[in-house]
Amino acid sequence: MVRVALLGCGAVGSEVVRLLHEQADDLTARIGAPIELVGIAVRRLGRDRGPLPVPPEIFTTDALGLVKRDEVDIVVEVVGGIEPARTWLVEALTAGRSVVTANKALLAEDGVSLHEAAVAGAIPLLRPLRESLHGDRISQVTGIVNGTTNYILSRMDSTGAGFTEALDEATALGYAEADPTADIEGFDAAAKAAILASLAFHTRVRAADVYREGITDVTAADVASAREMGCTIKLLCIASRSTVDGVSVRVHPAMIPRGHPLASVGDAFNAVFVEADAAGQLMFYGRGAGGAPTASAVLGDLVAVARNRLAGVRSASESAYADLRIRPMGEVLTRYHISLDVADRAGVLAAVAGVFAEHDVSIATVRQVGHGDDASLVVVTHQAPDAALAATVEQLRRLEIVRSIVSVLRVEGE
Amino acid sequence: MVRVALLGCGAVGSEVVRLLHEQADDLTARIGAPIELVGIAVRRLGRDRGPLPVPPEIFTTDALGLVKRDEVDIVVEVVGGIEPARTWLVEALTAGRSVVTANKALLAEDGVSLHEAAVAGAIPLLRPLRESLHGDRISQVTGIVNGTTNYILSRMDSTGAGFTEALDEATALGYAEADPTADIEGFDAAAKAAILASLAFHTRVRAADVYREGITDVTAADVASAREMGCTIKLLCIASRSTVDGVSVRVHPAMIPRGHPLASVGDAFNAVFVEADAAGQLMFYGRGAGGAPTASAVLGDLVAVARNRLAGVRSASESAYADLRIRPMGEVLTRYHISLDVADRAGVLAAVAGVFAEHDVSIATVRQVGHGDDASLVVVTHQAPDAALAATVEQLRRLEIVRSIVSVLRVEGE
Repeated sequence: MVRVALLGCGAVGSEVVRLLHEQADDLTARIGAPIELVGIAVRRLGRDRGPLPVPPEIFTTDALGLVKRDEVDIVVEVVGGIEPARTWLVEALTAGRSVVTANKALLAEDGVSLHEAAVAGAIPLLRPLRESLHGDRISQVTGIVNGTTNYILSRMDSTGAGFTEALDEATALGYAEADPTADIEGFDAAAKAAILASLAFHTRVRAADVYREGITDVTAADVASAREMGCTIKLLCIASRSTVDGVSVRVHPAMIPRGHPLASVGDAFNAVFVEADAAGQLMFYGRGAGGAPTASAVLGDLVAVARNRLAGVRSASESAYADLRIRPMGEVLTRYHISLDVADRAGVLAAVAGVFAEHDVSIATVRQVGHGDDASLVVVTHQAPDAALAATVEQLRRLEIVRSIVSVLRVEGE
Repeated sequence: MVRVALLGCGAVGSEVVRLLHEQADDLTARIGAPIELVGIAVRRLGRDRGPLPVPPEIFTTDALGLVKRDEVDIVVEVVGGIEPARTWLVEALTAGRSVVTANKALLAEDGVSLHEAAVAGAIPLLRPLRESLHGDRISQVTGIVNGTTNYILSRMDSTGAGFTEALDEATALGYAEADPTADIEGFDAAAKAAILASLAFHTRVRAADVYREGITDVTAADVASAREMGCTIKLLCIASRSTVDGVSVRVHPAMIPRGHPLASVGDAFNAVFVEADAAGQLMFYGRGAGGAPTASAVLGDLVAVARNRLAGVRSASESAYADLRIRPMGEVLTRYHISLDVADRAGVLAAVAGVFAEHDVSIATVRQVGHGDDASLVVVTHQAPDAALAATVEQLRRLEIVRSIVSVLRVEGE
């Protein structure tokens, strides 16, 4: 018998309770012993949680007391947030319990060294990465890891809507929360990027190490520019291992070609695209959030942890043996797509090209379209350090002949 | 120290040797101990295997002697085929070694109960399925699991070429072997289908249990018909769990809508599309064969097995606890797309519709196009037992007013 304490009973927690009951026979067969749910810690008793297949006396408001109970083997945490979840899990680990957690914020902050504790995050789509490529060396992971922003960008792409309009639609349909900041400013994606990078490169990456830009500045003009390039705009999280030193981890909107496997990941779906030395290109695709998919990942980890516990060993722990340097964004090699409105007169292209040259940024293509007194100039660069590209844009902005900078976007996936 | 014996040193084996050397530090850190390659069994010594980072005396032609050596902890088999691989692995398991194998034929035949032995098949794209959904209930797995046939069908779709022409091109480019039978007749896909179904449903499925049709009868007319329906043709392996009783496992060409995630899996790529109760829709995409991807999967399993061996436990074994009935193809519910040339005269549609009605097959859509004395009739059915659909086609073939049956294809993914 494996005895489980559940911390939290919201959307994920109640789905875990339901699955534990419905799939009891299957789980028993897979683990080699039955699972018994011995307690559920909640903030308030008596709240309506719908019909759950457990007796009412199983609920408690004393989470700390529950994790300390002698009978408990495994603590499953689906509360979310840093505190009090951190305190409870530290206590659980100290008391010798195994831990399964779906807490992105906590794993990304890595305060309790959870990555090296019993198990590393029952997060849908991150589990296959953790388990599938143990014998390979990953060079880059590119992910679409936030469903809300992917829904908004997909709508902007398919309807030509602006950001605000698409956000309103997402809110109305329940794809965006009332306060969408964590999604649209890229905080949720940055937390997942930190976890992804830690798993992929066996090193310690915290959310604070992740370079982050949200999608609030993406305009209909950006989307149109991308379309002209045969691209679409996605909020990408990109974790790269440099051949020389360290890793870079970043979250920002970028153009990717429509033929790239990530380009067709629509609506609220997520995907993680992996490039590994031997396995080549791999992609994992599916629902990255929500009660049921997260509960599925939690139960997957629970089976693994329970099996190991019965066998008397610790679960295969995540390790941070590589201890790699985090490269600052300015060093990372990227490509920019820059769209400018300029005065249509002789010498303009030379002046603009001179700014790129001054920062050692090589131009891949340039396209000029005159219309009346003004002209549009679309420049796509070769790879250059991000700091040099940003400085180029800043200097272009100050040029007298540049009327406005219409769109600046990074280009990935080519 | 974990001591490994390698059986076979072809494309996969030599890549395993190379990765063991190149990634030695990473592997040591992940396992917690270094791996030592103590012997490599080959059929002939002295064959040119390119530069491998091992001393020549490590090679032996005595595979049986190698697996029995006391020092050996783990036996990695990359020879392929049923015998002598089966005998060697039975000997290895009897002697207490852990086993890692990439041998599809052997796993699909399941002669040595390898599914329940140390480990179940280091097959790219099948590993994530094995490891990711342990806490969920899978209802259906739909896969594109053979790169050669996917390349041929992709070319037929994009160029309008016939089967023979596309096969010749695949052979010239090295995507098809000199004797392509195992690929184009669906034997390779059926072996993988058996393994997929066993993993997905925790039951015993052998290659012989899999209903199998290859792609040799797919014509340019079929591809054109699919295109008119907004579909493309793929060789699908489909493993379904019936809500009432048993599983069905089948490999055959089928139309799928171009908007389905599997439709955009091009060229020699593979993908496995999973529908699970809680996780929803998931897809794993990547290279499903070849020396390097298979070696990556082998090393992934090697890390898992070595860790467990050091911890003193057996690896999480595959189980066949569910022991489900295999449903014959005739019972499986499918949909047919049937294209007929018929005489263009009154009463034809009534006669054709009568045949469908006689077999209790409900028609979803019918489209009639007259041209001179003849007319084309395209019928798409609702779901019906495959036997009823096949019998309908047979009876249509015997109708005097039916000039010819141009194309018969199953429709999936809707």
